Amino acid sequence: MTGTHTDRAARIIARCREIAACTEIPGEITRLFLSPPMREVHTLLRGWMEAAGMTVHVDAIGNLRGLWPGSTPGSPRLLIGSHLDTVPNAGAFDGILGVVLGVAIIEELRDQYLPFAIEVVGFSEEEGVRFSKPFLGSLALVGRLDEDTLARTDRSGISVQQAIEAYGLDPVQLPAAALANETFAYLELHIEQGPVLENEDTSLGVVEALVGQTRMELVFTGQANHAGTTPMHLRHDAMAAAAEWIVAVEDYASTHSGLVATVGKVEAAPGAGNVIAGKVTASLDVRHADDSAREASVIAILKLAETAATRRGVHVTSSNQLEQPAVPLDSHLVTLLDKAATKAGFPARRMTSGAGHDAMILAPVVPSAMLFLRSPGGLSHHPDEDVLPQDVEAALATAMEFLAQLRDDRTNPKDGHA
Amino acid sequence: MTGTHTDRAARIIARCREIAACTEIPGEITRLFLSPPMREVHTLLRGWMEAAGMTVHVDAIGNLRGLWPGSTPGSPRLLIGSHLDTVPNAGAFDGILGVVLGVAIIEELRDQYLPFAIEVVGFSEEEGVRFSKPFLGSLALVGRLDEDTLARTDRSGISVQQAIEAYGLDPVQLPAAALANETFAYLELHIEQGPVLENEDTSLGVVEALVGQTRMELVFTGQANHAGTTPMHLRHDAMAAAAEWIVAVEDYASTHSGLVATVGKVEAAPGAGNVIAGKVTASLDVRHADDSAREASVIAILKLAETAATRRGVHVTSSNQLEQPAVPLDSHLVTLLDKAATKAGFPARRMTSGAGHDAMILAPVVPSAMLFLRSPGGLSHHPDEDVLPQDVEAALATAMEFLAQLRDDRTNPKDGHA
Repeated sequence: MTGTHTDRAARIIARCREIAACTEIPGEITRLFLSPPMREVHTLLRGWMEAAGMTVHVDAIGNLRGLWPGSTPGSPRLLIGSHLDTVPNAGAFDGILGVVLGVAIIEELRDQYLPFAIEVVGFSEEEGVRFSKPFLGSLALVGRLDEDTLARTDRSGISVQQAIEAYGLDPVQLPAAALANETFAYLELHIEQGPVLENEDTSLGVVEALVGQTRMELVFTGQANHAGTTPMHLRHDAMAAAAEWIVAVEDYASTHSGLVATVGKVEAAPGAGNVIAGKVTASLDVRHADDSAREASVIAILKLAETAATRRGVHVTSSNQLEQPAVPLDSHLVTLLDKAATKAGFPARRMTSGAGHDAMILAPVVPSAMLFLRSPGGLSHHPDEDVLPQDVEAALATAMEFLAQLRDDRTNPKDGHA
Repeated sequence: MTGTHTDRAARIIARCREIAACTEIPGEITRLFLSPPMREVHTLLRGWMEAAGMTVHVDAIGNLRGLWPGSTPGSPRLLIGSHLDTVPNAGAFDGILGVVLGVAIIEELRDQYLPFAIEVVGFSEEEGVRFSKPFLGSLALVGRLDEDTLARTDRSGISVQQAIEAYGLDPVQLPAAALANETFAYLELHIEQGPVLENEDTSLGVVEALVGQTRMELVFTGQANHAGTTPMHLRHDAMAAAAEWIVAVEDYASTHSGLVATVGKVEAAPGAGNVIAGKVTASLDVRHADDSAREASVIAILKLAETAATRRGVHVTSSNQLEQPAVPLDSHLVTLLDKAATKAGFPARRMTSGAGHDAMILAPVVPSAMLFLRSPGGLSHHPDEDVLPQDVEAALATAMEFLAQLRDDRTNPKDGHA
């Protein structure tokens, strides 16, 4: 890649927008796991990778993988990646920016070979839309794509295995998609998808951990009754009980550092303006970087539901839908990435990721680090999702500096890390 | 009607259950305006009415009307009635009990003629289900069945006018459905459809007024955002704002006497567990027997919405969907009915009706009174809707005593009422 720094950021953004045009639904950006437009995405990226001198192949789960060799045969390998799929009606940067930046890093290297190889991976699936299960691409790298997952079906009744075959890939080859043994680190560049960096007027964030998450469903059961004939003191209003709890959830999370808790889905039955709600079903999403803090919060929040319900003669039950422990990233790599950002002139904010990312799947298996780029308006999963050229430039400069840090670190290892 | 008092209550209840078997949907009680089973209802009631010596006809809106003459030609006329239609999957007593009790009153009179005639009317439509407009039957009696109403269509595109014709009736004859000029009073017997009488262990309620009602829709607009990546202090959570308001509505109504306020319909968008709600649409139903108290409450409740929204950077708008003034019943008739209940041995509770009834349509035109029977469990619009035999007996005894009071009142008018 040539030209000024502004040029290279503009070119990275232009490539993201070019890939955004590969969509299942004209007029919006929608590109699910192994959908037809994914082929065009592979073609575009393969072209850029090969032009940069990389060796490219598509593995059996549909991940696009390009290799830039190290200075010696059998060099250790750094993996850089993010995902190629999108949510329905998405923006142009979630996932794909990290892959395009990976290619740009290799372009920046030009003919320079490091004491480690670099593999750039575009994961075929991270969003979990088509099969209601996320991370299909990265799960294949860590050998966690089990039979149950392969048997999951989409809305048309097509299984993951059938989707792989229909795309012209061979499920028998899935084990070969595993992470190369010599891989020593994973780096993911991704938009923040939240307002923290923008709110602090900062380009970059260095992720220390991906938060753990509890998802539950609560059901408040009161008594449906006539809104006109039932005096207030004789009501068992499930909606009022749920409402008191929703406010209490907000208050609890606001007063507990590092915690977010959300009630985003609320359904009142029978759902008529002139009938007191007899039943309310509500979602609960609780996230914290510290698992024990999250678990304690969930217990406290469920007690708040009991309080709000009991006061009204309403019954409440809860069921657990997801229990995802927090994933800490590698502290040594985090330190190197932080240093790199400062050295590149873009001091980063240390933060946790409230969203899931492929790094969550890779971190338990290989030391991993993650760099966030500011999201204008905190917007993501939205057609207006954007990224600032200056932040793309900052991320690229930081990544190049990170490679230098890694090289020095491997040549001259300190404090036991290699 | 012969036999013991217990027998006659049992017979009235048995007749209601016999009519309940006339349904559009086998296995449940669903009988909309001029639906095929309404013909069987007419046949059954006509049979009982004629056996009691009444002259019966069906008017042009499908009301079944039976006349029991007075002692002299051209006697004034008391109208007793309620409705024949039901909500979907209804109980066996809402409406129909008042008509069957009307017939039982005539049966009790046997060969006794009063100084006034009695017309028992079974209104063809009160619930407003088929044409999303209630009171079609009683509106015809007061000349308020306008062209717009006749042109309304049901889900199949059939208009009110076409439904009348399809049933074999003649819309040209609608003016003849008007209330007879000599009508001097209207009495409606109806289940309470609420828990007040049961809660006070009382058989009967004398209705003083039908409450006025405001129905609104509120829209809270915040900002949809990622539940994991958006810290609590940077949220504009429309659901939290709506929830705070819902609790405030409940609290406001609970601390203002005679007021009921309900938020029964709540829809959060986008409505995903992992997305902060960007928009919440909520219903508001406010009722009070005093119009100015209701109007002041609505203003206060909308202010509470502003407060809850503003605190979170959420915007709230409201739109009025219904503004129905309270309908006071005739104070002299209310007094007579109250006296009658006491004299019959069933002292009644004075109360307001939180629901709409045909009496609401008739009261502005003719002095009207309404007697409530206790609803076990406060249940109505439900297959388990019920009535106690002892309360049916109490209502019948009170009605007979009311006729005696009316007779005395008309023979020897006091304080200006005649």
